[in-house]
Amino acid sequence: MRIEKDFLGEKQVPEHAYWGIHTQRALENFPLSGHPVHSNLIKALALVKVSAAQANMELGYLDNDTGYAIIEAGSEIAAGKLADQFPTDALQGGAGTSTNMNVNEVIANRATELLGGGKGQYLVDPLNHVNMHQSTNDVYPTALRIAAIKMLLPLSEQIAELQDVLQQKEAEFAGILKPGRTQLQDAVPVTLGQEFSGWAQAVARDRWRIYKVEERLRQVNLGGTAAGTGINAPREYIFLVIEKLRQNTGIGLARAESLIDVTQNADVFTEVSGLLKAAAVNLNKIANDLRLLSSGPFAGFAEIRLPEKQAGSTIMPGKVNPIIPEAVNQVAFQVIAADLAITMACQNGQLEINQFLPLVTYNLLQAIDLLGKGASILAYKCVSGITVNEERCLELVEHSLITAPILMPVLGYAKTAEVVKYARREKVTVRQAVKDLGYLSSEDAEKVLDYHLMARPGSADKPLREE
Amino acid sequence: MRIEKDFLGEKQVPEHAYWGIHTQRALENFPLSGHPVHSNLIKALALVKVSAAQANMELGYLDNDTGYAIIEAGSEIAAGKLADQFPTDALQGGAGTSTNMNVNEVIANRATELLGGGKGQYLVDPLNHVNMHQSTNDVYPTALRIAAIKMLLPLSEQIAELQDVLQQKEAEFAGILKPGRTQLQDAVPVTLGQEFSGWAQAVARDRWRIYKVEERLRQVNLGGTAAGTGINAPREYIFLVIEKLRQNTGIGLARAESLIDVTQNADVFTEVSGLLKAAAVNLNKIANDLRLLSSGPFAGFAEIRLPEKQAGSTIMPGKVNPIIPEAVNQVAFQVIAADLAITMACQNGQLEINQFLPLVTYNLLQAIDLLGKGASILAYKCVSGITVNEERCLELVEHSLITAPILMPVLGYAKTAEVVKYARREKVTVRQAVKDLGYLSSEDAEKVLDYHLMARPGSADKPLREE
Amino acid sequence: MRIEKDFLGEKQVPEHAYWGIHTQRALENFPLSGHPVHSNLIKALALVKVSAAQANMELGYLDNDTGYAIIEAGSEIAAGKLADQFPTDALQGGAGTSTNMNVNEVIANRATELLGGGKGQYLVDPLNHVNMHQSTNDVYPTALRIAAIKMLLPLSEQIAELQDVLQQKEAEFAGILKPGRTQLQDAVPVTLGQEFSGWAQAVARDRWRIYKVEERLRQVNLGGTAAGTGINAPREYIFLVIEKLRQNTGIGLARAESLIDVTQNADVFTEVSGLLKAAAVNLNKIANDLRLLSSGPFAGFAEIRLPEKQAGSTIMPGKVNPIIPEAVNQVAFQVIAADLAITMACQNGQLEINQFLPLVTYNLLQAIDLLGKGASILAYKCVSGITVNEERCLELVEHSLITAPILMPVLGYAKTAEVVKYARREKVTVRQAVKDLGYLSSEDAEKVLDYHLMARPGSADKPLREE
Amino acid sequence: MRIEKDFLGEKQVPEHAYWGIHTQRALENFPLSGHPVHSNLIKALALVKVSAAQANMELGYLDNDTGYAIIEAGSEIAAGKLADQFPTDALQGGAGTSTNMNVNEVIANRATELLGGGKGQYLVDPLNHVNMHQSTNDVYPTALRIAAIKMLLPLSEQIAELQDVLQQKEAEFAGILKPGRTQLQDAVPVTLGQEFSGWAQAVARDRWRIYKVEERLRQVNLGGTAAGTGINAPREYIFLVIEKLRQNTGIGLARAESLIDVTQNADVFTEVSGLLKAAAVNLNKIANDLRLLSSGPFAGFAEIRLPEKQAGSTIMPGKVNPIIPEAVNQVAFQVIAADLAITMACQNGQLEINQFLPLVTYNLLQAIDLLGKGASILAYKCVSGITVNEERCLELVEHSLITAPILMPVLGYAKTAEVVKYARREKVTVRQAVKDLGYLSSEDAEKVLDYHLMARPGSADKPLREE
Repeated sequence: MRIEKDFLGEKQVPEHAYWGIHTQRALENFPLSGHPVHSNLIKALALVKVSAAQANMELGYLDNDTGYAIIEAGSEIAAGKLADQFPTDALQGGAGTSTNMNVNEVIANRATELLGGGKGQYLVDPLNHVNMHQSTNDVYPTALRIAAIKMLLPLSEQIAELQDVLQQKEAEFAGILKPGRTQLQDAVPVTLGQEFSGWAQAVARDRWRIYKVEERLRQVNLGGTAAGTGINAPREYIFLVIEKLRQNTGIGLARAESLIDVTQNADVFTEVSGLLKAAAVNLNKIANDLRLLSSGPFAGFAEIRLPEKQAGSTIMPGKVNPIIPEAVNQVAFQVIAADLAITMACQNGQLEINQFLPLVTYNLLQAIDLLGKGASILAYKCVSGITVNEERCLELVEHSLITAPILMPVLGYAKTAEVVKYARREKVTVRQAVKDLGYLSSEDAEKVLDYHLMARPGSADKPLREE
Repeated sequence: MRIEKDFLGEKQVPEHAYWGIHTQRALENFPLSGHPVHSNLIKALALVKVSAAQANMELGYLDNDTGYAIIEAGSEIAAGKLADQFPTDALQGGAGTSTNMNVNEVIANRATELLGGGKGQYLVDPLNHVNMHQSTNDVYPTALRIAAIKMLLPLSEQIAELQDVLQQKEAEFAGILKPGRTQLQDAVPVTLGQEFSGWAQAVARDRWRIYKVEERLRQVNLGGTAAGTGINAPREYIFLVIEKLRQNTGIGLARAESLIDVTQNADVFTEVSGLLKAAAVNLNKIANDLRLLSSGPFAGFAEIRLPEKQAGSTIMPGKVNPIIPEAVNQVAFQVIAADLAITMACQNGQLEINQFLPLVTYNLLQAIDLLGKGASILAYKCVSGITVNEERCLELVEHSLITAPILMPVLGYAKTAEVVKYARREKVTVRQAVKDLGYLSSEDAEKVLDYHLMARPGSADKPLREE
Repeated sequence: MRIEKDFLGEKQVPEHAYWGIHTQRALENFPLSGHPVHSNLIKALALVKVSAAQANMELGYLDNDTGYAIIEAGSEIAAGKLADQFPTDALQGGAGTSTNMNVNEVIANRATELLGGGKGQYLVDPLNHVNMHQSTNDVYPTALRIAAIKMLLPLSEQIAELQDVLQQKEAEFAGILKPGRTQLQDAVPVTLGQEFSGWAQAVARDRWRIYKVEERLRQVNLGGTAAGTGINAPREYIFLVIEKLRQNTGIGLARAESLIDVTQNADVFTEVSGLLKAAAVNLNKIANDLRLLSSGPFAGFAEIRLPEKQAGSTIMPGKVNPIIPEAVNQVAFQVIAADLAITMACQNGQLEINQFLPLVTYNLLQAIDLLGKGASILAYKCVSGITVNEERCLELVEHSLITAPILMPVLGYAKTAEVVKYARREKVTVRQAVKDLGYLSSEDAEKVLDYHLMARPGSADKPLREE
Repeated sequence: MRIEKDFLGEKQVPEHAYWGIHTQRALENFPLSGHPVHSNLIKALALVKVSAAQANMELGYLDNDTGYAIIEAGSEIAAGKLADQFPTDALQGGAGTSTNMNVNEVIANRATELLGGGKGQYLVDPLNHVNMHQSTNDVYPTALRIAAIKMLLPLSEQIAELQDVLQQKEAEFAGILKPGRTQLQDAVPVTLGQEFSGWAQAVARDRWRIYKVEERLRQVNLGGTAAGTGINAPREYIFLVIEKLRQNTGIGLARAESLIDVTQNADVFTEVSGLLKAAAVNLNKIANDLRLLSSGPFAGFAEIRLPEKQAGSTIMPGKVNPIIPEAVNQVAFQVIAADLAITMACQNGQLEINQFLPLVTYNLLQAIDLLGKGASILAYKCVSGITVNEERCLELVEHSLITAPILMPVLGYAKTAEVVKYARREKVTVRQAVKDLGYLSSEDAEKVLDYHLMARPGSADKPLREE
């Protein structure tokens, strides 16, 4: 153990640790979730530090040795090295100061090492050098935005893949007529392809949403320091550091029009989370529908079969359960719950900053992770392997009375009702009933009750009118 | 009472009522919230009925007498007449069928009256004529979108007004230096104007959001009928009815690319509600900040005074409470809770439709109402009348130690810390301390501790460097 | 209009109004929800005022004329008279002061009238007399508890009635064997009666919960005045007023051990709301299950039929939807959303009081109302009329493979799996398969696959072992 | 790698792994949260397995060798051994089957080892032996209850410790008079001790709640197997296994009156979570109040000082932030969000079981953990070290006007208002004002404005009346 000091006193820090006294205090102060801060936030913070060092060096505030050492150390962390040196708990008070200091300290010690010093020797100082012209209050919200944007790219792809898989199935099942169900009651016919198209369209909207989300996150308050007024940060630095950050992240970041605003307001995270929640709503609906349509195999709807991913029961040989959709439902619930945590954190910021961003980080990055993974298992472990029970679908269309409405434009309401009544009583098909009652000739009945037209918009009056 | 019939049997309907048996059943079935359906939904539904009648008449499906009578009756309702004829409870099962039928029945009876018939005589039929080529499942979601869009316009104005009032105050208080507070602890100086600017910027984002919300709602599924397949609706009608609706509403509505999708998916309402929630988060933060800054009058922050809107206590003569911000907090809580109700309703749609849209309607329209009214009272009953306690602000800046950081670029960290220590011990101002310690000449101290520069971004190194 | 004054100035009040200037200001300050305060809160406040007047009169603080006039006026209001004199909006800032003052003013003017004066003349003063020894901060939380308890009694009965109706059906359907479903997949057999018993038991727990809720609400802080310290309230009054209140309400109220605590903490309302939410969870589950079991009539589970309460579709003649369960789902969603509003209001109280109790009132009393009405329509408009499709249930049991597990204790896992495989391939029943394969004699097969034993706990090894 | 088989096919399992093919499939199926199942659930499941083996052995269903091996292996796991053998993701579909099978497989392989076999050899079978007479649907909900109860004991102690520490401070600060604040405005005087008492009382209620929670969880459905009907479980086993479980856990568990009910209904977890949420509401309120009272050091309320736990700013030398209360706020937000996830999981159970219990487990056990740790850091890292700024408190009482109400019973409303007006104008204390105006003799003024009486209930009329 080595001894480190700050204005509150001394503290022992493990000899091997790259972190320092502030991180050590944080470890004692926040024994809460047991989960460390998300690695993407650490990497984003490291990029902020690299960018600040570049700007400060270029403007002459940092000498080259110190500057390059910080850049080197920061780059290592951004590349995923030293990942075990960030043990600070994800749930922490202090508006993210502990995470910022953890990064400052690890960079300082690693840079010191690069300059030939030992840990704790601080040839490079965590505050004076690594954190130069910065405050937790500007670097933390900036890093959170970067981390989120970086995670949105894979999410967007995962959602796009789900859309693709759904659309493949839409094409595959375009010709399968089956009962529609409204309010869970037998309704008019649809094709199975149409059902997949409904899901695919919803997911397409999610892609668009995620694109929008990214836009919303690009405005950063770096340079605003403690309260958005930029106190103690030189003017040139404020302009330059964003440029550096843009280069280092490859993201089209922009300095917020008002640094004051972005330093204190966290509403954007609520907005982003709300958009993710809309995606969760869609995943949930799809998962529910898949579980309904695959219910059975005998005593349920049984129109489709999900791929079998694991044995479902120790008591029912052969029972297979819709485990992937069930997992997706739970992903959706968790994302919706995360949205509530984020909302409470955002709404309770006070005056110059929002002190609850660590909770936003914890929930927002987890939500993005989960949504992407949920979409991915839904696509590749479920939807892609769905097969249809054609025989069952056809039987349900034939033997239910859902085709009757097709007769209404031709026979009118009263006769159609007669057909329904007769078919129900005699247990025959609608096709048979309309013939038995002599309301349509056999030929006309075939034309009107043409299964190929039933689920096409605007086909209502076609069959007989066209002649 | 008169007797009406449907396929479930007979029912007595009050003689005077324009509604019919379906509405009467709904009254008995849903004795729940005690609140009727929002009047804007009723008006929007009436416009849908008018549009359908126009299209059906133009295409020859409805004769002119019937068509004009429906148009006349529908237009009356859209103008707010017969408002007491829509008693159906806001919380209702049936996916909105009861509300749709309530409108169908009132229009049918009113149109019958216009054609010289009596109530219950149904010269114009609620189903065959008024509801022709429609289903609750396409007219209801369409009407909900129209109602929401119409209410977003005033909301947008109310938010804009709040922004204006905040910006007026931003200008008025631009020169008032006061303590910043981060994590409720004294931090670096800001101007009171800057605080108003932070709120104004957040509210500006809300305006933009509401504009986006409107875009999201413009895609309607009218023409999709029961399941989005357009069953029983002729092709020409599907195209024409949207045109008519566009004209009648004055809103740039578009037929959804996929009627299937928009008939079954309600994620857009979750998205919209999420955006409103972001606005609620901002209102909540502003209300909290105002309550903090006006806390006192003696034992609190006491930097500003809110206008006095009512006597606050029966025990403390002269006590006045921040009642408007408190009301705004509660508006925010209610909007956030509404978002949860909407989310649950949207996520639980099943297969071809979402049967819980009545709950979405209830909560979404209430949320829009409340947000607008909350923004409005905040603007005109609170913010516009705020005055500053300049003496207090100045005293807090002078006698706290928040100006010390300004010294750091000039004196370095160590000497600055000395100044702070001295000032605290001797209970003098930072200005005095720096002179007493001889770290700066009296003249330089004035320059560096220039209150006019303290809250300006990038002013860190200016004072002495510029010479 | 008459003119009234307070320390903020003058205001016109409608001549006919029993309310006064404070209420008039509130009307202008809070044009928010459009809903007045719940009548039960007004009645409860009136009883508090009556009790205080009795105590103050008995202790000599109020003369008899004034005291009796207040008691008479308050009793009228508690009995539901003058109900249109309480127009204050349910969403209001000020911790309930406006509602308290509305009651004070109406009582004062009515009491003045009883003493021969005119409205606005205030022979009885709203503050000095009606509100004597009180503060909004003790009377409002007290009245909220009383209002809630009074509403819990009917709720408890409505829940009990639902339990009764479910148990009647449990008995009626005790002999109906049908497929169990776990994760929506066919599982082992259960009786329809057992399913009703599962719902009934859950609802029974809700009854018990509501009983607990009442206990939690009985501790009141009346006498604590502004901050729970009882400032300005005489000692004898503090003791006596609770006794009077107990008599007037007929509820076993108790003075809180710590008036400080109950004046500032609102956690009890969160707890109460959480218990109501558990009841909502049960209603939601029952409604979902009923919708699933009645799905069809042909293409769904179709085991039960719900009573037909309204025509379901304008396109499908004869379609009937599960409108009552759908309404109950929405009730559940709304109660869950109300719980969130209540939670946010309770968690954001500050220091000596909770200023957001008006929002708690609005949501809590609505939630109690809705839950009771939801339980009631579920019981009487749905469950009581449910019929079973016996033929369908039997067919599902016979032709699915859910009876196979019964064979396992007798045949072991491997042979049972063989039976399942054979039955599936040959499309025969399990009974037939076991015979065809010669694993059991016809007689033993009947014994083992005895439908009467299948759904009975502990029947696993009985059939053959018993011999 | 070794090869294992199930009815879906073959799969490679790592040679070293105690888990088997089902777990291996789960690892591939659910790459979601990255967090394993909570260790307490694993331990509880192991105890269930031990109990079942004991019952089955005693009743002759398991031979002694097999039985003892299972008991030994299960006991090891319950003691925390083999903890790295449970990698199944916390978020999983399948109603907990994967977790149950993970435990079955590890026990089977470990038991096989104990009997001299090798991993994968399954001398003891995961299903036929370890899972004998069980189903995921009865063991999982049972284990969840056991895990929760076991975690409630330390939680209860942590809450009790917080209460103790608060009460110590209540005693320590009993004599410190300070301003009360209602709606953040200066109100009547209270003692700092009273404020701590208000928090302590709320926390005391939480202790009682947790005790209640435990009661609610004691009813288990073990023996109900797949659907609560106990299919395939012998009668004697059903009775015996609970007895064994009671002994093994040391918890007063009871067989649920209705196994059907407890197998399908999860409302109890919503109830439990709701009670935890009430505790979170209290922690949140305390944390907020502490942050307010310690705001400053100069520009805030500044009545108390929190212990300094870490340096707060890199820009403000000496700034210390309320990091512990801020962490506690976030704990509260997370627990409230967890409650929503739990609610959604519980409300969406379908028919015979609730398939979303894994999400309940994830959130409920985390919530219990977090609450306990939050209470603990609040007690020992914050409250216990709080000091008071007596001088400040006294100054606020003296120089604000909050003592004026004390005069009302003696001087009446009008004269008291005069005193307030005079004191405000002349900037003197209330004491001085009342003397200056000649309303009270110097001696009487001292008596009436006796700070020792001000915050005592019922002291209103004492001072002068007593003579």
